[in-house]
Amino acid sequence: MAPIVTLLTDFGVESTYPAQMKGVILGRCPEARIVDLSHGVPRHDVRTAAFMLASAVKAFPEGTVHVAVVDPGVGSSRPILAAAVEGSLFIAPDNGLLTIILGTEHEGRAGRRVEALVSVENASLFRAEVSSTFHGRDVFAPVAAELASGTPIGDLGPPVKEFRPFEVPAPKCEGGRVLGEVLYVDPFGNLVTNIPAGALRSGSQDRTQTRIAGAVINGLSAAYSDVHAGMLLAYIGSAGFLEVAVNRQSAADRLGAGIGTRVSVKVGD
Amino acid sequence: MAPIVTLLTDFGVESTYPAQMKGVILGRCPEARIVDLSHGVPRHDVRTAAFMLASAVKAFPEGTVHVAVVDPGVGSSRPILAAAVEGSLFIAPDNGLLTIILGTEHEGRAGRRVEALVSVENASLFRAEVSSTFHGRDVFAPVAAELASGTPIGDLGPPVKEFRPFEVPAPKCEGGRVLGEVLYVDPFGNLVTNIPAGALRSGSQDRTQTRIAGAVINGLSAAYSDVHAGMLLAYIGSAGFLEVAVNRQSAADRLGAGIGTRVSVKVGD
Amino acid sequence: MAPIVTLLTDFGVESTYPAQMKGVILGRCPEARIVDLSHGVPRHDVRTAAFMLASAVKAFPEGTVHVAVVDPGVGSSRPILAAAVEGSLFIAPDNGLLTIILGTEHEGRAGRRVEALVSVENASLFRAEVSSTFHGRDVFAPVAAELASGTPIGDLGPPVKEFRPFEVPAPKCEGGRVLGEVLYVDPFGNLVTNIPAGALRSGSQDRTQTRIAGAVINGLSAAYSDVHAGMLLAYIGSAGFLEVAVNRQSAADRLGAGIGTRVSVKVGD
Repeated sequence: MAPIVTLLTDFGVESTYPAQMKGVILGRCPEARIVDLSHGVPRHDVRTAAFMLASAVKAFPEGTVHVAVVDPGVGSSRPILAAAVEGSLFIAPDNGLLTIILGTEHEGRAGRRVEALVSVENASLFRAEVSSTFHGRDVFAPVAAELASGTPIGDLGPPVKEFRPFEVPAPKCEGGRVLGEVLYVDPFGNLVTNIPAGALRSGSQDRTQTRIAGAVINGLSAAYSDVHAGMLLAYIGSAGFLEVAVNRQSAADRLGAGIGTRVSVKVGD
Repeated sequence: MAPIVTLLTDFGVESTYPAQMKGVILGRCPEARIVDLSHGVPRHDVRTAAFMLASAVKAFPEGTVHVAVVDPGVGSSRPILAAAVEGSLFIAPDNGLLTIILGTEHEGRAGRRVEALVSVENASLFRAEVSSTFHGRDVFAPVAAELASGTPIGDLGPPVKEFRPFEVPAPKCEGGRVLGEVLYVDPFGNLVTNIPAGALRSGSQDRTQTRIAGAVINGLSAAYSDVHAGMLLAYIGSAGFLEVAVNRQSAADRLGAGIGTRVSVKVGD
Repeated sequence: MAPIVTLLTDFGVESTYPAQMKGVILGRCPEARIVDLSHGVPRHDVRTAAFMLASAVKAFPEGTVHVAVVDPGVGSSRPILAAAVEGSLFIAPDNGLLTIILGTEHEGRAGRRVEALVSVENASLFRAEVSSTFHGRDVFAPVAAELASGTPIGDLGPPVKEFRPFEVPAPKCEGGRVLGEVLYVDPFGNLVTNIPAGALRSGSQDRTQTRIAGAVINGLSAAYSDVHAGMLLAYIGSAGFLEVAVNRQSAADRLGAGIGTRVSVKVGD
């Protein structure tokens, strides 16, 4: 079975930077199947990239190599990490991008199985000349090709125990409500929050009440079309979190909401 | 020969939604060759998607599986259709997206060979958990992988005879003129009308006269560069319909024209 | 090893035009690996396409077939060129797009090895019906598939010696400074100039001074993060030319600079 390599960057599809990474990967691992996760991460937005990565990789088969390059510190001394997590492989700068994938004690994700975590330092695997502003092409791409070709992750560099996380905003319970915030706005203007489905499942869907940006939404819907076009709805989205949308329109525009907007949910009883 | 699967959606390339569909397809049919038809359909615009699909698929070899997900009714009771048409396979919501592919009596497309049309209901082919807001990933993608792997279309669900079409605006002949409208505006600002080449072929190209948005264009050109930069031209476009363009500029901008703008052609004699 | 075919166009990812090219290529060469170099070339901007092509192809293995279609003269009598250069293959309209790839005496690129240059005229290789406005699909794509399948370049048409170059703006030395201009602005707003690394290498990096759009930048940096966020820096970019950027922001926006903006460098001593 041909190895799959995915790419997530903030390079933009209009540039040739993603293609240059692909050229290097195919030169070293001609049988790789390359899939663009997205090249539309907002520039330098590591936090959004971390969410996009974590929500997208669940759809890929085990053994996939996921390469994420949102890397404002490129060329500096920041390490590059490679990780094996639940059968899939990840390469990313050590700037928090893997925070959700690796989990943190803070979040109680001890259950996630991290099989290996190494610092990518074996320069013999890099391209012969490394541009200090394009490690995506000269470091990440060749290392991804190595992993896709079956090189053991331990050959990439020494194991590490620590990595640089960022504070993933965790939802809180307060006075019978779950308090969270918007993590991601998708291209439809749907607002993805950090409140996981599990936090709401115990309650009655009809009596759940969501407050966001001055609006009150009663009940949890199953589908957009459960409400009239132009109406707000709350629902469990495809990434497993509470989302707020407007049927056939943009909730971000309607509510003037974005990443960081607070949301408060009264779980139905 | 590895099966080809194409994807047409309104998800936007900046999201990871197309990639999530690809992960599912490659997980179930690792040898599939996936091609993005486009993820830039205007949001929820089934009519434009129908045109984009019908004009693009002619370039693909027989046996290709075309998946189209512009689906504002996702999660509702709207059926999902799978069709075999002239040797290629199609999966789309039953919301009019396949109107041009399947043809209608209205349009006199009786000649098109529809080999099978089924309602996709065999849930054993879907992903184990189906999000009610992302059938693209959890229903369309696994079903596409099944078809690409050789599963007969009849295994997807029961045959149906009816489907929900939309009114494709048909050109009319009136007082020696052909009256039509703009169906699609491409990224160059070229205006693709619903007037097929066949309606104009009988006449003299030099004496054909096109009226649109107050402008009059004499003659049919062969190439953009037949007129000076900045000049309007009318010509038979690559999809087989009359188009109006401005050499090296945008006709949509110049004329303030868009989808639905009326066009009237006097066929040369 | 499956042949790689890359596509560079100004068609935009929102259209289905790139996909139509891919359908034709896969129909004729099912094992081809297709990579999008970019479909975001500014409309009709042959000069920018020439730079994007030349800087991207270095990342691809020998034997890759590179197809570039920025072709405002499509359907006119402008020839189409196919070239073999240092083991890779190129197809593009004869409008200057291959200027940097083929090199010119003017630039002193005599050292570049052009193995073959032919005029693509063998219509038996084209699609049966050729639209005069979409040679990308009906001429370039099938010819690319032929090359990818191993058809010798000589079968495409007769050899030619001349091609239509454009004037690539060459840097000049004047009064101890190197004078150049901006060739390309990437999606980050980084300004790529026409001053090659070689012109600066002899000097001290610390004492190099770059002037652009009224700003003065002292020294050459190695990485964006060598300066504080929001500060200007000059550095040798991943394409091998002097670039000007703002750490974590857009230099194009900051300086009001774009393609053609003059840059002047005093090489350190």
